[in-house]
Amino acid sequence: MPQTTRLLISCPDQPGIVQAVSGFIASNGGNIIDSQQYSLGLDAHFFMRLVIEPVGKFAAGIPNLEELFKPIALRYDMDYKFSRGHKRMAVLVSKYDHCLYEVLLKKQYQELDVEIPIIISNHPDLEPVAKMFGVTYAYLPITGDKRAQEKQVINLLESHNIDFIAMARYMQILTPEFTSAYKHRIINVHHGFLPAFKGAKPYHQAYDKGVKIIGATAHYATEDLDMGPIIEQGVIPVGHRDTVDDYIAKGRDIERMVFTKALCAHAEDKIISYQGRTIVFD
Amino acid sequence: MPQTTRLLISCPDQPGIVQAVSGFIASNGGNIIDSQQYSLGLDAHFFMRLVIEPVGKFAAGIPNLEELFKPIALRYDMDYKFSRGHKRMAVLVSKYDHCLYEVLLKKQYQELDVEIPIIISNHPDLEPVAKMFGVTYAYLPITGDKRAQEKQVINLLESHNIDFIAMARYMQILTPEFTSAYKHRIINVHHGFLPAFKGAKPYHQAYDKGVKIIGATAHYATEDLDMGPIIEQGVIPVGHRDTVDDYIAKGRDIERMVFTKALCAHAEDKIISYQGRTIVFD
Amino acid sequence: MPQTTRLLISCPDQPGIVQAVSGFIASNGGNIIDSQQYSLGLDAHFFMRLVIEPVGKFAAGIPNLEELFKPIALRYDMDYKFSRGHKRMAVLVSKYDHCLYEVLLKKQYQELDVEIPIIISNHPDLEPVAKMFGVTYAYLPITGDKRAQEKQVINLLESHNIDFIAMARYMQILTPEFTSAYKHRIINVHHGFLPAFKGAKPYHQAYDKGVKIIGATAHYATEDLDMGPIIEQGVIPVGHRDTVDDYIAKGRDIERMVFTKALCAHAEDKIISYQGRTIVFD
Amino acid sequence: MPQTTRLLISCPDQPGIVQAVSGFIASNGGNIIDSQQYSLGLDAHFFMRLVIEPVGKFAAGIPNLEELFKPIALRYDMDYKFSRGHKRMAVLVSKYDHCLYEVLLKKQYQELDVEIPIIISNHPDLEPVAKMFGVTYAYLPITGDKRAQEKQVINLLESHNIDFIAMARYMQILTPEFTSAYKHRIINVHHGFLPAFKGAKPYHQAYDKGVKIIGATAHYATEDLDMGPIIEQGVIPVGHRDTVDDYIAKGRDIERMVFTKALCAHAEDKIISYQGRTIVFD
Repeated sequence: MPQTTRLLISCPDQPGIVQAVSGFIASNGGNIIDSQQYSLGLDAHFFMRLVIEPVGKFAAGIPNLEELFKPIALRYDMDYKFSRGHKRMAVLVSKYDHCLYEVLLKKQYQELDVEIPIIISNHPDLEPVAKMFGVTYAYLPITGDKRAQEKQVINLLESHNIDFIAMARYMQILTPEFTSAYKHRIINVHHGFLPAFKGAKPYHQAYDKGVKIIGATAHYATEDLDMGPIIEQGVIPVGHRDTVDDYIAKGRDIERMVFTKALCAHAEDKIISYQGRTIVFD
Repeated sequence: MPQTTRLLISCPDQPGIVQAVSGFIASNGGNIIDSQQYSLGLDAHFFMRLVIEPVGKFAAGIPNLEELFKPIALRYDMDYKFSRGHKRMAVLVSKYDHCLYEVLLKKQYQELDVEIPIIISNHPDLEPVAKMFGVTYAYLPITGDKRAQEKQVINLLESHNIDFIAMARYMQILTPEFTSAYKHRIINVHHGFLPAFKGAKPYHQAYDKGVKIIGATAHYATEDLDMGPIIEQGVIPVGHRDTVDDYIAKGRDIERMVFTKALCAHAEDKIISYQGRTIVFD
Repeated sequence: MPQTTRLLISCPDQPGIVQAVSGFIASNGGNIIDSQQYSLGLDAHFFMRLVIEPVGKFAAGIPNLEELFKPIALRYDMDYKFSRGHKRMAVLVSKYDHCLYEVLLKKQYQELDVEIPIIISNHPDLEPVAKMFGVTYAYLPITGDKRAQEKQVINLLESHNIDFIAMARYMQILTPEFTSAYKHRIINVHHGFLPAFKGAKPYHQAYDKGVKIIGATAHYATEDLDMGPIIEQGVIPVGHRDTVDDYIAKGRDIERMVFTKALCAHAEDKIISYQGRTIVFD
Repeated sequence: MPQTTRLLISCPDQPGIVQAVSGFIASNGGNIIDSQQYSLGLDAHFFMRLVIEPVGKFAAGIPNLEELFKPIALRYDMDYKFSRGHKRMAVLVSKYDHCLYEVLLKKQYQELDVEIPIIISNHPDLEPVAKMFGVTYAYLPITGDKRAQEKQVINLLESHNIDFIAMARYMQILTPEFTSAYKHRIINVHHGFLPAFKGAKPYHQAYDKGVKIIGATAHYATEDLDMGPIIEQGVIPVGHRDTVDDYIAKGRDIERMVFTKALCAHAEDKIISYQGRTIVFD
């Protein structure tokens, strides 16, 4: 069965863009099912997401579309990306299993529209979970040289043609080489309401500050720890009866939820990053 | 200063609509600032909202645009509406002031983009509030003949060229003549989470059922009481310490919030009703 | 290690209850760690929950305490219950796994303070899940005679000394004999915001009504389907882009959350039912 | 009509406190309507709030009660406070009116249980609002010497026997002399989700960081700006369509809500501060 095509566009705003794009689609036999457009206003940057039925030339391959679209993209100075079908997502995980379960269950329920060729971990603990859901599990321990292990990880990602990476509480800091090789393609979940409570033990920090709400943040991993563009955030109230352990327990619920929401949005090409912020279409 | 034009479209889906519409806009010198489109999928109904900069023919009057657009509308069997500028909103109110204050404050803060030529009430109590915000207050008591009073209300609405009506806890049931004369132009707030708790004393009903969350609903008023298309709903938790009076107090907060959200959406032409449901664009 | 004792009390309000109860505890060498008390006010019913350190006579067995407490209970016409340690919870499940996973994971994280001696199902599908978490799975198919199968279920519950039952989307209506045998000891999750959307296909009902928020409800199962005392409710917004399938997906998240919250509250003796409503202590 | 008595207690935990306190109440003819108790666990600090019916000696004056209670307080090393009736609350305000309206409306609805003898401002703008609600408005401009104006403010507070102060977006930094004179009796609302976004223009800071949720915080004002014990926090989602002005508008809704919730809790003696955190009873 042929699949719908998704098109993401970002460019300086000017009159005529929508007409040019919709004209391109119509003249190639396509039909727009969903379209969202948004302009930043004063700075006049334009963002658009389109979903196109697999008819006309949109029933055929992506490369051809990219060639055909190039003149329009050049005229309007566009960043653009056509895509189709499931993305291939790798999961990096350490010992905590709550985000991993959530990813595997949401995939099973077809809420998370990806293939998961591989789960990679620096610990052997979660192999049984991977096994139960029928996913290959690669145990790559960190034995002294962290860089050597990271290279193994990257090799594995490449050999599996991975499109993007889900850091399901991986607990390791990636090198700048890694994050820049997968720019805007690594999604991390931080167990704090960024930009508050960066770094280690955010729930302890939150407890010490006496906040009444705790949160979690899904964001693109960049070389600045816990500083990449935020995709999704969630919160939950805490009260004086809650201990740090209760914060951690409540936090698990929020972490897994914002994490999979962010993964779903990325998987369906709903996110555009621009100047350190994200546009996340519905 | 010329104003942006808003265009709402609803029609059976088919290829080429977006191109036709965006082509119409471009060929008349317009520039699309915001566009949202949504198709119901299988039943293939198409909904669109556009915001167009006041350039080219879009700097001139609406009637001319409607004439120019007619051929496209006919070809695609469209319901459509151009609009521009502030709508004229009347407020119907009884004795409760919380929704009235909210409407007047949100207008003052320019969150609610309307003119309010008149507040109409069957009680004199809230005249001082109207006065304080500089709005005309018409006291039209119900003395025996409800229909006679309703006619006075309608006359007043007509003489003030009212576009739509905010029922800010008006506590009166409108006749079918009234609701059909202002179809999809009367927004009521019901102090219950519809379709549960229709009719009178919804908070008492909720208390008796022992629910743990109460809510409020803003909807278009139709001849079926509390059954018109829902625009916005909100909820708030209640606990065993809460009495019915606490429900009513918490309810006030939710009522005013869902009410003004719905009014804002209507004022900015973000709502399309279709088959008893609403599409509410962002 | 000796365990804390929990005491739940419900009786007509009158002066001196707290003194009598706290005096009883002190004179038996106990120390109150946590205490919550609540009186319904006008109808003057009194509810209390106490947590007592395992010192003095509170380090010994429950039966002795019950004997010692009887005079006070008689004087104040109290319903009361001492308890200690983990309750034994059975899970009834059908084919949907999301509530089952949640229960097993929350137990694993020690958020849900129970023992789970058995999972019972009328389908074989979820046996692998039970196995993975090391819990016995009993497959009791319904072959014609529903009552016969129910009897098998009850036998199994009795043989495992089950304290209470988690209906994790079991999809079967229990007989009044069953529900009254386990009065206030069966917790069901209904995938709708009760009292709206009782019965079958609540998400379809919600979709048809065009609501903007959907919900789920955990309640004690009684002989009136979906009418027992509500323990916990949760909601999630839906929009015009959401299909019924999206409602079902979003619903899964809410169902599992309200369900396990209710189970935790029951497991820790935080719930008192009174006149069809529940008091749920923090 | 005699009024209920509220008693707040905080002391090192040890066995027998509840019995001693409830014995004191019973032996003086009182009846406990509501009681909440909470112990921090390991560090073993004990917190309690009681509401006592106006019978027996609890129908008479507070000073007598304090005298009677002293021996118990000494034995258990208690911080304690008896109180009864409405507190006298002053409002400090600048030019923003949304928190002021909320305070005055919640008082009018009897949700906020205080007397408001005076509203003090460094600007004349909001006098009409005060007038409408029948509250005295003192305009004390800051003309060069900030300290001189603060002295005038303090004089006015003292002459009106003010119990506590609501800083309804007052926009002025108080001196340490002021904050320590009214320790844990000044409630400020900060328009950011503390500890993130301290200081000026928090919504601009939030926008620049690209957060997906914004918040507001009500806290006791201390000499460290925006660092006093947090009482209440609230949040609201923001999206890529929201401008900083939208953040400010959404923020108004959250600010006024957390602010009045904190004021209500303080007015009803539900808050105990301990080591920079607050216990807020239900």
